[in-house]
Amino acid sequence: MSSSNIRAAIVGSTGYGGVELIRLLQSHPKVTITSVISSSTAGTSIAEGFPHLTEIHTDLLDDLNVEAISAKADVVFLATPHGVSMKLAPQFLDAGMKVIDLSGDFRLESGDVYEKWYKHEPADAAYVERAVYGLSEIYGDQVAKTDFVANPGCFTTTSLLGLYPAVKAGWIDPDTIIIDAKSGVSGAGRGASLGTHYSEINENFKAYKINKHQHTPEIEQVLSEAAGRPVATTFTTHLVPMTRGIMATMYAKINGKRTDADFVELYRQFYEGRKFVRVRPEGKWPATKETYGTNYCDIGFSVDERTGRVTIISVTDNLVKGAAGQAIQNLNLLMNWDETLGLQFTPVYP
Amino acid sequence: MSSSNIRAAIVGSTGYGGVELIRLLQSHPKVTITSVISSSTAGTSIAEGFPHLTEIHTDLLDDLNVEAISAKADVVFLATPHGVSMKLAPQFLDAGMKVIDLSGDFRLESGDVYEKWYKHEPADAAYVERAVYGLSEIYGDQVAKTDFVANPGCFTTTSLLGLYPAVKAGWIDPDTIIIDAKSGVSGAGRGASLGTHYSEINENFKAYKINKHQHTPEIEQVLSEAAGRPVATTFTTHLVPMTRGIMATMYAKINGKRTDADFVELYRQFYEGRKFVRVRPEGKWPATKETYGTNYCDIGFSVDERTGRVTIISVTDNLVKGAAGQAIQNLNLLMNWDETLGLQFTPVYP
Amino acid sequence: MSSSNIRAAIVGSTGYGGVELIRLLQSHPKVTITSVISSSTAGTSIAEGFPHLTEIHTDLLDDLNVEAISAKADVVFLATPHGVSMKLAPQFLDAGMKVIDLSGDFRLESGDVYEKWYKHEPADAAYVERAVYGLSEIYGDQVAKTDFVANPGCFTTTSLLGLYPAVKAGWIDPDTIIIDAKSGVSGAGRGASLGTHYSEINENFKAYKINKHQHTPEIEQVLSEAAGRPVATTFTTHLVPMTRGIMATMYAKINGKRTDADFVELYRQFYEGRKFVRVRPEGKWPATKETYGTNYCDIGFSVDERTGRVTIISVTDNLVKGAAGQAIQNLNLLMNWDETLGLQFTPVYP
Amino acid sequence: MSSSNIRAAIVGSTGYGGVELIRLLQSHPKVTITSVISSSTAGTSIAEGFPHLTEIHTDLLDDLNVEAISAKADVVFLATPHGVSMKLAPQFLDAGMKVIDLSGDFRLESGDVYEKWYKHEPADAAYVERAVYGLSEIYGDQVAKTDFVANPGCFTTTSLLGLYPAVKAGWIDPDTIIIDAKSGVSGAGRGASLGTHYSEINENFKAYKINKHQHTPEIEQVLSEAAGRPVATTFTTHLVPMTRGIMATMYAKINGKRTDADFVELYRQFYEGRKFVRVRPEGKWPATKETYGTNYCDIGFSVDERTGRVTIISVTDNLVKGAAGQAIQNLNLLMNWDETLGLQFTPVYP
Repeated sequence: MSSSNIRAAIVGSTGYGGVELIRLLQSHPKVTITSVISSSTAGTSIAEGFPHLTEIHTDLLDDLNVEAISAKADVVFLATPHGVSMKLAPQFLDAGMKVIDLSGDFRLESGDVYEKWYKHEPADAAYVERAVYGLSEIYGDQVAKTDFVANPGCFTTTSLLGLYPAVKAGWIDPDTIIIDAKSGVSGAGRGASLGTHYSEINENFKAYKINKHQHTPEIEQVLSEAAGRPVATTFTTHLVPMTRGIMATMYAKINGKRTDADFVELYRQFYEGRKFVRVRPEGKWPATKETYGTNYCDIGFSVDERTGRVTIISVTDNLVKGAAGQAIQNLNLLMNWDETLGLQFTPVYP
Repeated sequence: MSSSNIRAAIVGSTGYGGVELIRLLQSHPKVTITSVISSSTAGTSIAEGFPHLTEIHTDLLDDLNVEAISAKADVVFLATPHGVSMKLAPQFLDAGMKVIDLSGDFRLESGDVYEKWYKHEPADAAYVERAVYGLSEIYGDQVAKTDFVANPGCFTTTSLLGLYPAVKAGWIDPDTIIIDAKSGVSGAGRGASLGTHYSEINENFKAYKINKHQHTPEIEQVLSEAAGRPVATTFTTHLVPMTRGIMATMYAKINGKRTDADFVELYRQFYEGRKFVRVRPEGKWPATKETYGTNYCDIGFSVDERTGRVTIISVTDNLVKGAAGQAIQNLNLLMNWDETLGLQFTPVYP
Repeated sequence: MSSSNIRAAIVGSTGYGGVELIRLLQSHPKVTITSVISSSTAGTSIAEGFPHLTEIHTDLLDDLNVEAISAKADVVFLATPHGVSMKLAPQFLDAGMKVIDLSGDFRLESGDVYEKWYKHEPADAAYVERAVYGLSEIYGDQVAKTDFVANPGCFTTTSLLGLYPAVKAGWIDPDTIIIDAKSGVSGAGRGASLGTHYSEINENFKAYKINKHQHTPEIEQVLSEAAGRPVATTFTTHLVPMTRGIMATMYAKINGKRTDADFVELYRQFYEGRKFVRVRPEGKWPATKETYGTNYCDIGFSVDERTGRVTIISVTDNLVKGAAGQAIQNLNLLMNWDETLGLQFTPVYP
Repeated sequence: MSSSNIRAAIVGSTGYGGVELIRLLQSHPKVTITSVISSSTAGTSIAEGFPHLTEIHTDLLDDLNVEAISAKADVVFLATPHGVSMKLAPQFLDAGMKVIDLSGDFRLESGDVYEKWYKHEPADAAYVERAVYGLSEIYGDQVAKTDFVANPGCFTTTSLLGLYPAVKAGWIDPDTIIIDAKSGVSGAGRGASLGTHYSEINENFKAYKINKHQHTPEIEQVLSEAAGRPVATTFTTHLVPMTRGIMATMYAKINGKRTDADFVELYRQFYEGRKFVRVRPEGKWPATKETYGTNYCDIGFSVDERTGRVTIISVTDNLVKGAAGQAIQNLNLLMNWDETLGLQFTPVYP
C-alpha cells in the first residue's frame, strides 16, 4: 500500500458485513484499514472472535469515538444495524469524513415509508436527502459526486439489476412484476436465534416476511423512478440452507413480442463497460455459486410465448455485491477510481 | 401382517422412489411386500446396494418376469422412468394385477401434449384412458373405482393442492397464476451426474428447465378442469441444496376482496376429513421440514392488499406425498381402506 | 391404543430429545402420551413452537406439577438438562412413578467424578445408586428389574456398543483405545448460540471439548467394568455440518492375531438376538445415514496387519439410539415387553 | 502483469484442481496463464463448462500438444490423475519446461511401494528420482533448486505439517501415531459417481478406504525421514458433507512431560517466518472454515495428562494448501520469489 492510500475505518466489525469489508479491503491497493471499531470488544484482537483473521488483521479493536476515528481515517463504513446508523452517520459526516452506510436508514426518500416498513422513526431528513442511493451501475454518476452513500440492500441490488433495464425500456409491465427471492442464511446476520439455528435451517426451506419485507419499498422506489410512475410489487423472501448467495426469480408480462436474444442484447447494451454485471447468453441462467465471494451480479432470461411472460434470473453473493463489495465499489466511484479496484476476485468454485 | 394382507411387488427398486416404497410399506398393516424387482441385480440382496435395509428387507431381488410376479403379488408399483412404465403397465394389467405407476407416462390425457413435453412417443391411448389420475384429495372417488392409477408428479401434487380450491371457487384469476417451485435434490433421482454431484450443488442454488418442465402440462390439465376452461401457467423449478422437500410459492390475482382468514376457511372446508392436508392458520406458512418423511401437504396464505394478489405456500416431502406416499394412499383408496393406513408417521424433526 | 396402555409423561418437551420422544411414542402400540410438560409454555399447543406436530399432538402443554403428573401418567421421561434432572427424578420416584432420565445426572457411580467433569454438585447418592445405567444391549437384564433408568449419552452409546465385546473378550488392549467421535449438530440441543448458528457451522468442521467431554468418564466407567480394571481413554468430539448422526471411529492394539472376520463373528455372537445392533460383514463400514431416524447401532471393522491395530466404526442416530429411542427401548425392557416395540422404523433414506 | 511475467500452462483444467489453479493464478502478479489445456473440449471457451469464469478467462482451451505448449509457456501445472501425469511430466521436462505435478505419480521414492498402494505400475524411476517432493515448509530448500516438483497430497500436507516438528524433535513416539482425517467432498474430484451424489452425501458422514488410502505411504515416507527410522501409521479418511476443507485429528504418546504451551512454542519456532502455517495459542483449535479459500494450514494442540497423549488438530483447504495453492507456493520457491506471492487471500468467512 502506498502512503497516498486513503485510510478506512469500519464500524460494526462483529457482524458479517463488517468482517467481509475487512476481507475485501485487505487486498485493496489504494485503501488502508486504520481502524476497526467494536464497542463491546475494544482493546482486544479481532482474531479472538474471528480466528480466520489470525495474523492477518492484527491491530487491536478501537472504541467508538468519532473524534479519534476522524483523526485516523478518511472514510468510514457503517456496517451497523438500522437505527444505529441513523445516529452515527451524521456525526461522522459532521466530522468531515466520507461515509458509506450499509444499513437501510438512508435509502428511502420518504420518512413515512421508512416508518411504515421499519416500524421505527426515520433518520433526520436533511441527512436522508444528502445521501446518494448507491446502486452502483444505475446511480454511479451521482455516487461520484457525493461524500455520503446509502448502500443498497442485498435483495434490492439483486432484484433491481435484473429488472431496471427492462422497466426503463418499457419492455415489461411494471404492475405485473413478481419477485420471488431466495437468500443464504448469512443475510440474517451473525446474531444467534432459533430461526438461524443450524438444526432448524439445515435440510429445510422456508419463506419469511411474505409481503412484509423492508426491502420492498426500496425496490419500488427505484422501479417507480424507472417506470416514471408509482409501482407496487409482490416480493417474497425465502431462506436457503446455504451460507452465501441470493437469487431473485422475477416474472413480468412482456409488452409486445421479445425473444431471449432481445433481452440479452438490451441488457448487454445497458450494462456495457460495467464489469460486475455479466449477462448470460440465451438459454443460460446463472446459479448463485457462480458469483461466490465476488462482486458479480449475473443475469439470465427465459421468455415464454405461451404466457407472454419473461422470467428473469439474477444472482449475487449477498455479502459482496449485496453489501461489502458494492460498498467498496461505491468508494471507488466516489474517489473516481476504476470501480473494480480491489474487487477483481475470481469466484470460489466449487 | 395377516394372511389376508394383499401382496405387493415393486419394480424399479434401485431408484429413490422404489426404495421409499419399501420403507413405507414395511410398516403397512395390510400389505406384504412379496417381490422387489431389479433386472440389473436380481438374485442379490437389496442390502448390498442399500445397506440401510440390512436385516430389514432380506428377500433376494427378483428378475423382471411379469408372469412370475403376477403369481406372487396382487398389486405392482412401477417406480420406473417414463418410457419404461408405458411398456410395463399394460403387461401387468393384462396379467390381472392392479397397477400404480409413479412415472409420467399415463398422466396426460393428450398424447400430443405428452410428446411435446416429454420429447417421446406417448403410451398406448387405450391404457392412458383407463388410468385414473391419482391426486388423492381431488380425484379419490375415481381412484376408489379403478385398478390402474397414474400417480401424480411431485411438483404437480404440491402445486395443485395449493391452487385447486381457490381456482375451483373462482377466487383467483387462473391466467395470472405463477408457480415458483423449489425442490430438494432427491427429486432428480439416484443417477449420478454432474448436475447432482455434491460439490456442484452444495452451497449453491439454481433454476432449471425454466418454462420447459414436463410437469407444466400436468398442472395445467388439472387447473383447466378446475377453471372449466384452458389455463396456461408460468412454472419455474429450482434445486435447493437439501435432499428432501418441495415448496411451491404461488402467486395469483384475487377476484374481489379476500383475507387470509377467508382463504384458510375455504381450504379447511375443501379438505375437511382429509388428514394429509394441513391448512395453517392466518399468518403462518409451512417450511418443508415440517412434512419430512411423511405424507402431509401443508398450506399457508398471504393476501396483499397493496397488489391485490395472494401468495400461497404449499410444501411436501417430494418422495412421500410427491411419490411413494401418495402411491400408497392411492392403494388405500383403491382398496377402500382408510387412506391414512400405514402412512401415519410423525415428521422427522429436526 | 388399548385401554391397558401405560401412560407416559414427557418433561423437557421444548428440546430435541423431548420432541423426538413424542415422534417415537406416537406410534408405540402400548404407550399413550398423557402429558407433555413445558413450564414456559404451559397451556398452549405444542404445534405453536413445533408446527410439524400440527394436528398430531393436540393436547395442551402441562405445567410442571409432580402431583398432577403422577395422577395421569405411569412413567415419566425426563428430557431435561443435567442439574435439572437431579432435582426432578427423586420427586417423581417418590410419587411412585417409573422414571427414565435422559440427562447425565445419574449415570456416574462416583459423585467426585461427576463433579470433576460436569463442574457441578452431584445428585443425591441414594438415587444415583438406585438408578440402573440403561445401555440396553449390555445392561438390559438390570433394566428389566428397575423403575429408574439413567439413559446413556449419545457418544457413550455409540462408542461402547462398538468397544464392549472386544474389551470383554480381551481382544484389544484397553490402554490403547482412542475414540475419535463425530456428531451432527442436533446433539448440541435446541438452544441458539453462536456455536450452533447456521452460517458458522455450515461448510465447516470443528473439534470441541478435546480431552474434556463429560461423556469420557461414562465411557471409562463401562470400559473399566468390561476390562476388570480401571481404564483411561482418549476421547475427541467433532461437530459435523449435518443435523443427525454420530460416528465413533475407534482405534486399539489387538492382543494376538485377529482378522476382520474374527471380529464380525465375535460381535455377532455377542449381540445375537439384539435387533438394534447390526454388525456389518467384512470390508463394509456403516455410514451414519444408514441409521437415520431409527434405533439401530451399526458396526464395522478394519484390522490392519501392518500396525497391529483394529479400527472399529460405530454409528447411530444421536436422537434415537443416542437418546429418545434407547429411552423407549429401556421402557420396553423395564416393562418386560419385546425391546423393539414401537421402534421398528426403517431408516429414512436418502 | 509485467512483460517479464513467467508464462504458465495448466493441463487437466476440467477437474477441481485445475480450475482452482486458474482462480489463484488470475491474481498472481508474476504469472500469466498462457494456455489452459483440455483434450476433450479444446477450441471451446472454458466458461461453457465453468460459467463462474465468464468474462474472466476468455482464451479458448488448447489441445494437449507438448510442442505447442512448450512454445507458449515456461511452466506447466499437471492437474491430471495419477497414471496420466507419469506419461506427461517426462515429455514436458524433456521439452525444457518446469513441471509441477499435482498427482501422486512422482511422490513415492519406491516404485514397489507405489505399485502396492496405487495398484498401478510406477513412473519411470529416473524421473521419480529427479522430482523434489514439494512439502513447501519442510523441503522448500530443495524445491528452490529443482525444475520438477511432485506436489504433495491434501491429506498428506495437512497431516505432516501437524506431525513433523514433534516427530523431528523426538517429542512423540512415532509408533503410536494415529491419524483420523476428514475431508470435504471436493477432494474426490469432479467425476460424478454414486459415492459423491448429492443425496447420498448430504446429511451423512462416512469413512472410506480404511487402512488402504494411497496417501498412507506418502505420510510414512516423510515421518520415517523425520524419525530417522521406518514408521508405520494408522490412517483413516472420512467424507464430511461439505465441499472444501480437511481436518486431521492426530494422536500420539508423548515422550516425557510436555504441556500445550510447550507444543505451541516448539511449532512456532519450527515454522518461524513461514506465513502459511498458523500455530494457534494454547486451548484453541482451528476449524476448517478458518482456512477457506486460502493457503493456510492452522494447527492446535491438546495434551492429556491422564493418558500421556497429545491430540494435534491440523486443518487446510484441500484445494488450496492441499493442491493448487501449495503448487503455486512451490512455483514461488522454485523461482526464488517470496513464497506468499499471489497467495495472500483472506479466508472466506462465513
